[in-house]
Amino acid sequence: MTRLLEGWQTRTASSPALRFIDACLRGVGQVMFQNHPLSGLLFLVAIAWGSYAARAPEIAIAGVVALVTGTATAYWLRADSKDIHAGLFGFNAYLVGLAVATFLVPSTGMWGYVVLGGGVSTVAMLAIARVCKTWEAPALTAPFVLVAWLLLLATHAFAGAAGALPASASIVPLEAAAADPLRIGAFFEGVLKSISQVFLKGSGLAAVLLVAGLAVGSLRAAAWAVAGAAIAVVTAHGLGAESELVTGGLMGFSPVLTAVALGAAFHGPGLRAAAYAVLGTIFTVLVQGALNAVVTPFAMPTLTAPFVLVTWLFLLARPRLA
Amino acid sequence: MTRLLEGWQTRTASSPALRFIDACLRGVGQVMFQNHPLSGLLFLVAIAWGSYAARAPEIAIAGVVALVTGTATAYWLRADSKDIHAGLFGFNAYLVGLAVATFLVPSTGMWGYVVLGGGVSTVAMLAIARVCKTWEAPALTAPFVLVAWLLLLATHAFAGAAGALPASASIVPLEAAAADPLRIGAFFEGVLKSISQVFLKGSGLAAVLLVAGLAVGSLRAAAWAVAGAAIAVVTAHGLGAESELVTGGLMGFSPVLTAVALGAAFHGPGLRAAAYAVLGTIFTVLVQGALNAVVTPFAMPTLTAPFVLVTWLFLLARPRLA
Amino acid sequence: MTRLLEGWQTRTASSPALRFIDACLRGVGQVMFQNHPLSGLLFLVAIAWGSYAARAPEIAIAGVVALVTGTATAYWLRADSKDIHAGLFGFNAYLVGLAVATFLVPSTGMWGYVVLGGGVSTVAMLAIARVCKTWEAPALTAPFVLVAWLLLLATHAFAGAAGALPASASIVPLEAAAADPLRIGAFFEGVLKSISQVFLKGSGLAAVLLVAGLAVGSLRAAAWAVAGAAIAVVTAHGLGAESELVTGGLMGFSPVLTAVALGAAFHGPGLRAAAYAVLGTIFTVLVQGALNAVVTPFAMPTLTAPFVLVTWLFLLARPRLA
Repeated sequence: MTRLLEGWQTRTASSPALRFIDACLRGVGQVMFQNHPLSGLLFLVAIAWGSYAARAPEIAIAGVVALVTGTATAYWLRADSKDIHAGLFGFNAYLVGLAVATFLVPSTGMWGYVVLGGGVSTVAMLAIARVCKTWEAPALTAPFVLVAWLLLLATHAFAGAAGALPASASIVPLEAAAADPLRIGAFFEGVLKSISQVFLKGSGLAAVLLVAGLAVGSLRAAAWAVAGAAIAVVTAHGLGAESELVTGGLMGFSPVLTAVALGAAFHGPGLRAAAYAVLGTIFTVLVQGALNAVVTPFAMPTLTAPFVLVTWLFLLARPRLA
Repeated sequence: MTRLLEGWQTRTASSPALRFIDACLRGVGQVMFQNHPLSGLLFLVAIAWGSYAARAPEIAIAGVVALVTGTATAYWLRADSKDIHAGLFGFNAYLVGLAVATFLVPSTGMWGYVVLGGGVSTVAMLAIARVCKTWEAPALTAPFVLVAWLLLLATHAFAGAAGALPASASIVPLEAAAADPLRIGAFFEGVLKSISQVFLKGSGLAAVLLVAGLAVGSLRAAAWAVAGAAIAVVTAHGLGAESELVTGGLMGFSPVLTAVALGAAFHGPGLRAAAYAVLGTIFTVLVQGALNAVVTPFAMPTLTAPFVLVTWLFLLARPRLA
Repeated sequence: MTRLLEGWQTRTASSPALRFIDACLRGVGQVMFQNHPLSGLLFLVAIAWGSYAARAPEIAIAGVVALVTGTATAYWLRADSKDIHAGLFGFNAYLVGLAVATFLVPSTGMWGYVVLGGGVSTVAMLAIARVCKTWEAPALTAPFVLVAWLLLLATHAFAGAAGALPASASIVPLEAAAADPLRIGAFFEGVLKSISQVFLKGSGLAAVLLVAGLAVGSLRAAAWAVAGAAIAVVTAHGLGAESELVTGGLMGFSPVLTAVALGAAFHGPGLRAAAYAVLGTIFTVLVQGALNAVVTPFAMPTLTAPFVLVTWLFLLARPRLA
């Protein structure tokens, strides 16, 4: 496989078109911190399968359209070419495309949102990364969350791109209830879907492909993704979350990203670092619940805001873990 | 006119009172980025006319009271005198005065809010400008938005200054509907009022005076204001916004400011810069719709928050457009 | 008393356990900016009394549990030891413990929140302090507000830790009404409870102990706490706030903190500095009303967010007051 990758890199060096494709593939890989074209390819296949299985192939297409728009916008604005080729202007755009097509009804207006959202996500990435750089922090998926929220909120005001979003509503707190026992099947379903929901999909097969894509880039990242999902399912269940949300992976996708970020991407190995990553992962589950309550009245999904908030706090704290 | 201006500057140099008036006039001009006393004077006349025509002369007076308070507070806190004399402590205060008098019922309490708001807007300007300086970004009208929101929100809690604001309500998304054709008369009304709504007024004559005031300071700024308004009206209509909001200028005042900022105030001329300004202007229309949905449940107007958010993103991104 | 303190310091130097206790006591003192173990001890006694009198001793215990967890977490993350021993990792944790136990029904889940909240408050403190340091600003109680909001909001999503919070509701603006005259008894009750509500308690005796604790550390701080409370009660009443909120101290605890911060902790003495502190204190009353309106639909208390927001603005403005 190393030879295959070397062959690919030789070819991209001599062809601008292949370089662009390479940047796009790495962009998809960067959704889970992998600067690796093969990780990106496997992620793409996973999402294509998930969309097809859910009879919504337009979602996978929208992701790719926004990915291309976002990466092209980075070229147009003459962003740092090393950043472009590491895929740093792809992952937010790709997620914006997936989110817009997931939450809106297909229409001309929707495709306009996808293209505009892909382009603006690159502007947002440049801006947020520059601010974060002051404290040596990464932008994470904050540009995605910001741009996708703005586009989805805008559907309340414009009839041209109708949302499939429910009408806004008040917050209805959960009733205190005896927790259902967590059956083994529901546990595994929750773990797998927590991983695939990072890309807004609830699909076990997609999750397996995603873990494989992670493993290609970093075995440690793959292990932390699975561990993070397991921690999230157990924590959310233990705290008394709604079982449907837990098994659907909707309490776990942000914790999975926190686990990979704190456990593998930004800290070295070691017991202290691992304990810190576990603490962050557990806290992300709580923040997922908290932000659900904040965005519900606006008929919005949290997207990966809980991951961004907690991971920023835990990275900016800059603990001495070595 | 150049001689007239030179005569004025000679006189302000020798009289502290005239210097104060000059700072106040430039402060009004800075609402649309013009460090020019004559721009400010024309803007003042435009708003005086708009208030008089709407039978609410107290609005124009409140603007001036807050303007004087804000500028005087800057002297009291010994802010940088070059900044004071460029009008940097006037524009937020002036807008706070206009907003408080526009959205509250006239009363003793209201005048207290106007004076307090003018003074605190200078504190907010000093604070926000200092933070923004880290990334060489301007504070824009963020101090106005923050202080006016806080004052208007406070009317929910205090009986002393009653709001003319509607009661808080849930968000009601627009129904998808066949868009009305945009008639030529409605188009021009929308363009003019988008410009005058920068100062919270829906008046065609005021808009003409405002464009004249802009042209005195910068022809390019005047052209971008008109272009921004036209882009906003067409975009908002095309996306399916409510026609009343579009023709009333309520979807266009933030995009006008974004257009002037990105097209004239902060970037040089050129096709690439122009395309970037157009992209920012279009996105501001969407953000206007999005933030309308966020502030509606709190019975708040967005003020110029969409402009501030988008212009910050587009400036912080620091694209290479030359 | 100086000899007593010297004896204590000699002992803490030679015993890690006593040093830990000293850091915890100073942590409680830092809630009102006092780096002094005796201030902290008096504050602890005040809150213990307030909890006991309100038949909710678990509140005082939860505060201490979170205080110990937060301080221990700072050791674990190897935070700067000078900061630890100045109590900088105690005050946010202590307040998180008090808030969680005040607003949640006692249960196993609640104690889990207290421990987790205490630990995470230290992570949040490290992160926020690092960002604030860029502008030489203090973190104030922002870590407390952030972590406690997230924990309390999470109770909407999890049945395991039931909130005693009311269900979410729309904002109901106050009716304009003839203000009740402010009787002398109500005035003093409002002043005392404004001080004790800094620690989420409405108790006159606790307030007296708190002022005594402040006076131990700084007479000027004690004077400003009382002055801030009086200004807040008069301002809130004058603006037409609900009388029950005013006499219960619920419009005054944030202004008390602003008064101590701007009047004593961060500025030298002098008439100009005093006028600036009074302006900030009055504005905090308005912001308290404003933020009440923002958090009501989420069934959340403002906590000390009004203090944090206003004090940041007034410190970042960095006026020349000397």
